[in-house]
Amino acid sequence: MPGYVVGVDLGGTKIYTLLATVEGTVAAEAEVPTAAGRGYEAVLDQIADTVVAVAAQAGVKPENVRAVGVGAPGPLDPDTGIVHQAPNLGWKEAPLRADLEARLQLPVCLENDANLGALGEHTFGAGRDCNELVYVTVSTGIGGGLILRGEIYGGVGGGAGEIGHITVVPGGPGCRCGSRGCLEAVASGTAIALRARELLDKGAGAGAGILALAGGEAEAVTAATVARAAEAGDPEARAILDEAAWHLGTGLAAVVNLLNPCRIVLGGGVMKSGRLLWDRMDRSLREQALDAAYRRVRLVPGALGARAGALGAVTLALRSR
Amino acid sequence: MPGYVVGVDLGGTKIYTLLATVEGTVAAEAEVPTAAGRGYEAVLDQIADTVVAVAAQAGVKPENVRAVGVGAPGPLDPDTGIVHQAPNLGWKEAPLRADLEARLQLPVCLENDANLGALGEHTFGAGRDCNELVYVTVSTGIGGGLILRGEIYGGVGGGAGEIGHITVVPGGPGCRCGSRGCLEAVASGTAIALRARELLDKGAGAGAGILALAGGEAEAVTAATVARAAEAGDPEARAILDEAAWHLGTGLAAVVNLLNPCRIVLGGGVMKSGRLLWDRMDRSLREQALDAAYRRVRLVPGALGARAGALGAVTLALRSR
Repeated sequence: MPGYVVGVDLGGTKIYTLLATVEGTVAAEAEVPTAAGRGYEAVLDQIADTVVAVAAQAGVKPENVRAVGVGAPGPLDPDTGIVHQAPNLGWKEAPLRADLEARLQLPVCLENDANLGALGEHTFGAGRDCNELVYVTVSTGIGGGLILRGEIYGGVGGGAGEIGHITVVPGGPGCRCGSRGCLEAVASGTAIALRARELLDKGAGAGAGILALAGGEAEAVTAATVARAAEAGDPEARAILDEAAWHLGTGLAAVVNLLNPCRIVLGGGVMKSGRLLWDRMDRSLREQALDAAYRRVRLVPGALGARAGALGAVTLALRSR
Repeated sequence: MPGYVVGVDLGGTKIYTLLATVEGTVAAEAEVPTAAGRGYEAVLDQIADTVVAVAAQAGVKPENVRAVGVGAPGPLDPDTGIVHQAPNLGWKEAPLRADLEARLQLPVCLENDANLGALGEHTFGAGRDCNELVYVTVSTGIGGGLILRGEIYGGVGGGAGEIGHITVVPGGPGCRCGSRGCLEAVASGTAIALRARELLDKGAGAGAGILALAGGEAEAVTAATVARAAEAGDPEARAILDEAAWHLGTGLAAVVNLLNPCRIVLGGGVMKSGRLLWDRMDRSLREQALDAAYRRVRLVPGALGARAGALGAVTLALRSR
């Protein structure tokens, strides 16, 4: 009997939805910009519409869809299906699972998006042969998810994996979480761009190599600009990237010493900054992790890119049937 | 049918052995100083002797002992039963489980001692009603063990839980692991005593309040001396203790952000330093952990003291039958 599941990656900017067979083969996909500004009900409608759309696209009858997995941002409780807080969506204590089940008339499972990124890479990507896996995404923020003994590990409140908020620079730059010197505050794309702009603010030609690659516009400088300048040999850009990479290694060393994983899968835009960043990060990890633990772990780039979360949601739906 | 198990906590200075019923009630105990200097075979004999001794002491026939759990220091592999390295005992790649099974003619299970401390507190102590538990001992070094989903979590090489080697002071004091600024290097009993002696080395009456409590002998100053001086109101001692406590909170915050546990059980001599240390550690944790994770975790002193490891070994033996 033919059967299908749907995986939804609900983000602040887009909703990405996949239809897959029960064997895990993707049969259709859809992407729409999230109408966060139009409120909770509008986003529920959008999700339901994409589920109908991917089924129609593949010529699959709605009754042959068995389950829907949904990844959502922010602290949420997979057991109750409630999203406690999602600042990008403007939600608080949203009973997302129950509301989607009512709309879709299908079983829905909910998980944190970073955890589903981890599950996606574990099932279909760069962590396939490894049951003790840490997934880290470094983009505007730094998120993380844990696969322990082959399953998502959420801790007691579903909030495990927050590597972005480990303190790596005591008393360092303020973080949006309220603490100081968090990994996210010194090594995210946002932090790297900020360091570059602080450099430009010094004037007297500081950061000229970076500025040139942003067409002379300071506001256009991003972490990607810094990465390109560093690859082109600009020493100031390289210093910024080196520092961020070292901090990433410090955070990863905490994870490696604490969890002794076999794989760390790194995704997100910042991880595309090139070999300089990876080499420096690896050196920092090697110096700060215990030898026995360092020898057992491999750092690898994510294999699924932006699809990791939705493929994790597919896995979640497959496991729930 | 009556049945018994034995738990052994093998340390660098002593071997502590318990006999318990299959219901987990302690029936006899024995403690001998470890004859580490006399070599591997001598220590094996000692362990076997204590097992025989506790059985005899309780009037239990050897054939009614079902299994023996053993906690040993250092990196070891519970699956192969090999102790990779135990500097305090002078061992390398010691096939401890196989050798003990041959001597005792009983099934033996082996685990890291900090992991068994965690399991002991989980089964019999301060972590009884909690399945997501982190155990930390702060004494001459800083060790840790994880109970996740109610079971010891060792990671891929059995080396998980090494909270003592998380970097909390980048570029800080050297650690015996080869890295710098590890939690152990700035907050263990050894580190606290070292800070006090550095203070005394300044001369000109520095550290006089601490020195007085050590009978005027700098070599006699320990972490306990610093704790007593701090409790008595000595500002220099208090500053040393405050700093160590803050670093402990930094390390615990990394654990809380990463694992979202419901309980952290803290054992070891340094944790008996009094309220000043606990309050400061808690404040540091509160400032550096994510709010949602901080709200779900409780810090509590260990309930089993020096027996935690042996009681964990009893649990291990009970589960193995």
